Amino acid sequence: MEVKVLTIREDILGANTEIARRNQERLDKHRVLTVNVMSSPGAGKTSLILQTIGKLKEKARIAVIEGDIASTIDADKVHQQGVPVIQINTAGGCHLDANMTENALDNLPLEEVDLLLIENVGNLVCPAEFALGEHTKVMLSSVSEGDDKPCKYPLMFTETDVVLVNKIDLLPYLDFNVSEFNKAITGLNPRVRIFQVSCKTGEGLQAWFSWLEDEIEQMKNHHGKNINS
Amino acid sequence: MEVKVLTIREDILGANTEIARRNQERLDKHRVLTVNVMSSPGAGKTSLILQTIGKLKEKARIAVIEGDIASTIDADKVHQQGVPVIQINTAGGCHLDANMTENALDNLPLEEVDLLLIENVGNLVCPAEFALGEHTKVMLSSVSEGDDKPCKYPLMFTETDVVLVNKIDLLPYLDFNVSEFNKAITGLNPRVRIFQVSCKTGEGLQAWFSWLEDEIEQMKNHHGKNINS
Repeated sequence: MEVKVLTIREDILGANTEIARRNQERLDKHRVLTVNVMSSPGAGKTSLILQTIGKLKEKARIAVIEGDIASTIDADKVHQQGVPVIQINTAGGCHLDANMTENALDNLPLEEVDLLLIENVGNLVCPAEFALGEHTKVMLSSVSEGDDKPCKYPLMFTETDVVLVNKIDLLPYLDFNVSEFNKAITGLNPRVRIFQVSCKTGEGLQAWFSWLEDEIEQMKNHHGKNINS
Repeated sequence: MEVKVLTIREDILGANTEIARRNQERLDKHRVLTVNVMSSPGAGKTSLILQTIGKLKEKARIAVIEGDIASTIDADKVHQQGVPVIQINTAGGCHLDANMTENALDNLPLEEVDLLLIENVGNLVCPAEFALGEHTKVMLSSVSEGDDKPCKYPLMFTETDVVLVNKIDLLPYLDFNVSEFNKAITGLNPRVRIFQVSCKTGEGLQAWFSWLEDEIEQMKNHHGKNINS
């Protein structure tokens, strides 16, 4: 029975990859830089998204997809910021997938969006396996989770393009070795970009905003080139 | 295809429940009180287990099963405490299941164990669905994860018998409403037992130790009755 499950699992992942590819083509067409935001529960995904909206909404047209097992708590907070938001409730599912994302894209005015932030379900395991069509994978790792997370959940740290080490305002009260943590991440993923931030105090976020603005700009230029070539 | 997946999922859960039942019979036979310890990554499962071993190992014979996606970091720490420990590496799997647990039980001297602590994979979603054969489900929720977790991950809070609200030493530095949090948990699960603890400072742990000692005692007495009746 185990083999049977694995086969079907491969089918699921294969079908997911195909839909993710279709989603990305659609997002490329509309020049929507799309970021898949992942982390453990309570590591600060929604806080990061709210901070990013607050800083960049005058410069870029932002939309959000909120993935949750239950509730609309996060989507309500985003909605109050005046940006389009779609809530996906997974009804127990432990990650977003490309099909759910496609349904959400059907309900967003993509021609009027420059940056799409997708908040995945809080889970350090399963979301890493399912592409949604995003251009960039971003993960948050809260210092309160401890500095052994890269060793214990390697796939997420290997798959991501960016790690935001969040809640650095709590560092004085924790046993957390920043340099060992960074070393473990770059050992798994040498090309990863790491930002030390506090979404609560705002410390360190400017570097993240600047990086994201560059990415949005590159998406516009890159796509312009494709059209003209 | 979606329906097909659901069917197989039901088969998996059905098969899991059957093996879990078998595991529990085996644990009952040997009078081994078995506790399934669950939480998000980094909420303090290993710290709780180490504290519990330190306090109770003179009073009860303890063994541990460590579930991780990768690494033997936690098992090594437990091993240093001089108790039998089996590491299960799930190779990417996001939860323990009854079959993995059965394999681990085959490798433990159950006739010499009073308390078996099973540390599940750090995940607030999937472990809640898979019984292992345990007598008690215990979850940790770290205050640094925020007080909205019961609304966003309701199944775990509904399924558990005990919530340990961990890292209360960090409360002065967080926006965390203890009474709202407790209200949300008991709203989902009126019979749940809640302990406020810090596995770092030891605050509040005595109540947990006392509760656990009572449970071990009851397991011995209960089983004794069954044998004599």
